[in-house]
Amino acid sequence: MRILGIDPGLARVGYGVIETGPPIEMLDCGMISTEAGKSEGQRMVEIANDLRQLIRRWQPDLASVEKFFFYRSSNTIAVVQARGVLIMTLSRFRIPIVEYPPMQIKLALAGHGHADKSDVQDAVMRELNLDERPKPDDAADALAVALTAWFQR
Amino acid sequence: MRILGIDPGLARVGYGVIETGPPIEMLDCGMISTEAGKSEGQRMVEIANDLRQLIRRWQPDLASVEKFFFYRSSNTIAVVQARGVLIMTLSRFRIPIVEYPPMQIKLALAGHGHADKSDVQDAVMRELNLDERPKPDDAADALAVALTAWFQR
Repeated sequence: MRILGIDPGLARVGYGVIETGPPIEMLDCGMISTEAGKSEGQRMVEIANDLRQLIRRWQPDLASVEKFFFYRSSNTIAVVQARGVLIMTLSRFRIPIVEYPPMQIKLALAGHGHADKSDVQDAVMRELNLDERPKPDDAADALAVALTAWFQR
Repeated sequence: MRILGIDPGLARVGYGVIETGPPIEMLDCGMISTEAGKSEGQRMVEIANDLRQLIRRWQPDLASVEKFFFYRSSNTIAVVQARGVLIMTLSRFRIPIVEYPPMQIKLALAGHGHADKSDVQDAVMRELNLDERPKPDDAADALAVALTAWFQR
């Protein structure tokens, strides 16, 4: 089964693609980034376009997207809006979507809900048999979301 | 100038199209509604598709979208996500977007920021020379957002 993990954002969207095998392996990971100088709308258009390309290239069977709960600052409103664009784009391709909050991702990867970032990244390396930590952090986070979806099945 | 006003939502998206003339007039108003039984993603796909049709039919020069500030419940997260899809879709057609918070819309239409819904709707009727209040409320709200954009120019 091929799983696309996504760490949502407006400036930075992490993505990671895994094939569950066995053996489980990483096919791709990286980050969609958008420029602060452009309008929110244009940045979301770019995110949608880049996500479409990823979907066409990797044809995932399932998407796993980090879930949000609390929004306070105007900055996070932009992030939630961009998340809507990601979910809508995945749905256009009829890809099933599962969603996990950060604590559940930490629990699934590192065994407890208050693990720090490096514990989670170490677990991603170990599970995917990688020689080094995936870069940037957004890509590692996205792989963690993808792995969580697999471990939960 | 042709202005498309939008009152964002996931279950109900109000829209209203005005031509500023003179004389200023209403060309269309109504509501995009989506079923609670479908996934959030599919509902957002429908919203994007219906908005595309509206844009193609009316070719607006400007879009005016109600702005949000605070989000607490999980329900409003869905609304903010859907708002992202609306903004992205407008941007795909390169339509300039202005945004106004509820208080500014009330101020522009009814003269004070704490006007109630019926005061705003009366002002929409008066400004657009309508014989009755636009239905549903979402459509009337969308016309109010469109009128705000015009009054602010």
